[in-house]
Amino acid sequence: MEAASQRSQLSGERAQRIVDAMRASVAARGVAGSTFDHVARDAGVSRGLLHYYFGSKERLLAEVVRRDTDLRMAALDEQLARASSAADFIALLRGTLEDLVAQDTEFLALSFEVFTLSRRNPEIAAEFGELVRRTRAQVAQVLRAKEAEGVLVLRAEPEAIAEVLFGLGDGLALRMLGDPGHDHRATVAAGVLAVGALIG
Amino acid sequence: MEAASQRSQLSGERAQRIVDAMRASVAARGVAGSTFDHVARDAGVSRGLLHYYFGSKERLLAEVVRRDTDLRMAALDEQLARASSAADFIALLRGTLEDLVAQDTEFLALSFEVFTLSRRNPEIAAEFGELVRRTRAQVAQVLRAKEAEGVLVLRAEPEAIAEVLFGLGDGLALRMLGDPGHDHRATVAAGVLAVGALIG
Repeated sequence: MEAASQRSQLSGERAQRIVDAMRASVAARGVAGSTFDHVARDAGVSRGLLHYYFGSKERLLAEVVRRDTDLRMAALDEQLARASSAADFIALLRGTLEDLVAQDTEFLALSFEVFTLSRRNPEIAAEFGELVRRTRAQVAQVLRAKEAEGVLVLRAEPEAIAEVLFGLGDGLALRMLGDPGHDHRATVAAGVLAVGALIG
Repeated sequence: MEAASQRSQLSGERAQRIVDAMRASVAARGVAGSTFDHVARDAGVSRGLLHYYFGSKERLLAEVVRRDTDLRMAALDEQLARASSAADFIALLRGTLEDLVAQDTEFLALSFEVFTLSRRNPEIAAEFGELVRRTRAQVAQVLRAKEAEGVLVLRAEPEAIAEVLFGLGDGLALRMLGDPGHDHRATVAAGVLAVGALIG
């Protein structure tokens, strides 16, 4: 509850500047190297303000990932809503994975970092769990709507399909980024085949 | 090359003690909190020796993950070799995922941490890439052998199927651990259905 009320004060340009500064700092220095001093200087705010809003670097990192996830989910929602067939829907998902690997590696690395932190920090664990639940619910809702429109036939529960889509996407991205020299076209095709068993 | 030759000197009980001490330290203090001083004291070796063998904490972490992966792969190989049908094979994979989530959360967290480090450290990136390639090749080999025995029909390239299996396993484990209050039985069942499209 405290986190939610602090967050509500954080709308606006200044909050966004802090989040952007943290994102840039983590990209350049890693999480371990990104201190409140760095972020405060880069964002042009006082260290005290940063501390007041976020309490800890871990909380600020979770906030960066939360905002990025919300933006990505909104974009995904909008794309998927346009799908006019199961093949179309799955092709959009494949494109999302390919974009993630080509352009947004930092986002993926940050998400895994929040997971790692969540293993030792109950507050971050609560934030991470909330992200997992929210993304699942949101994609499940799109799946249900598409089924109601007659665009998709779902062969498992919408929430379960959503988890498989995210799980496969994150896990494949991890391996594709880990071995960039490998030709992953056959892997992506196999992923499409697997997802096709759930979305007809 | 240097890493490989240093590694060859590292067989034996002392190396294992160092790796075990690092694993225990990371579980208790996280990577950021695990210094060479801690690990040297816990392993009963000098800080200089640790430095000589591993050079950096990140290298030692990569070594922990490499050894754990080798052990897990050997166990998985042995299990999968016994499968007498596609359903059996997929059930064994499902069991591996369930064990990972129930018992080996630290291993998963460490693997993601090595991925995170690999984004900013070329040496760790090389180690991580090697892990990705080795695990893919090893499972692809089991898949090929099982196809040759007439136990499985593969509906995509063995390497591609191996990537999907690891990707889905890691990604689902991440989400299952991130939201432990959720009932994941339907998710696991959907994962089994998806994998069934690749392994008949």
